[in-house]
Amino acid sequence: MALEVDHVGLAVRDTAVVAAFYEQALGLWQEHQEVVGDGELQLTFLAADDGRASLELLEPLAPDTSIARFVSERGPGMHHVCFRVADIRAELARLAALGVELIDTAPRVGSRGRLIAFVHPRAAHGVLVELCQHGEAG
Amino acid sequence: MALEVDHVGLAVRDTAVVAAFYEQALGLWQEHQEVVGDGELQLTFLAADDGRASLELLEPLAPDTSIARFVSERGPGMHHVCFRVADIRAELARLAALGVELIDTAPRVGSRGRLIAFVHPRAAHGVLVELCQHGEAG
Repeated sequence: MALEVDHVGLAVRDTAVVAAFYEQALGLWQEHQEVVGDGELQLTFLAADDGRASLELLEPLAPDTSIARFVSERGPGMHHVCFRVADIRAELARLAALGVELIDTAPRVGSRGRLIAFVHPRAAHGVLVELCQHGEAG
Repeated sequence: MALEVDHVGLAVRDTAVVAAFYEQALGLWQEHQEVVGDGELQLTFLAADDGRASLELLEPLAPDTSIARFVSERGPGMHHVCFRVADIRAELARLAALGVELIDTAPRVGSRGRLIAFVHPRAAHGVLVELCQHGEAG
């Protein structure tokens, strides 16, 4: 079961420009930045005042990746919504038993060592839903 | 300045079907439902466990409305992200002074009497950003 909205993922063309907008316009601050996927994708987390719910900027660093195709076809914009859960493996097993179509039937290790998995947008009525489980380090 | 992500807005075709998915799959619960805009739009708020960040389902009840066009052209999916602020009039004045393009230069009264205003997606790099200020009733 979802504990809270962990973050909203935004596909971007230029992280610096978008981050500057949210920092200046809304006072968000850069919490973490990491390049993942063998250099294919730069992730930047912007946090609001309370440091909980946040934005994740996804900038493709290589063509022929899913984020590069997303930006190329649809333009920059909202990409996914991530819910934090306490036990991601239990949630994925429960969803599979319910017949919910999953992109990841087992969790992957994402940014900051968090466990992540995606539900297929076909199952979630057009929305790409991510689940994440924070480790003991948060 | 943003206090937190208040909710993520999802454009939907059939509220009952989408709400049932999030209730069953993620344990969200229906917090509030309201028809606004002279019967043109049904809003349904689904809350996560902690009752803070939530989803807002937007179902068009009439054609030729912005949500009806959104669903018709792009399909159901993520529509906007809303940040809660303490003083929406002060934030709008600050954004206008920064030259940020606003859809609403003054707040409107939204669901549950909350004050709301939208930033233009051209200003926010393809994302429709809503600001809201909760009243004393929350």
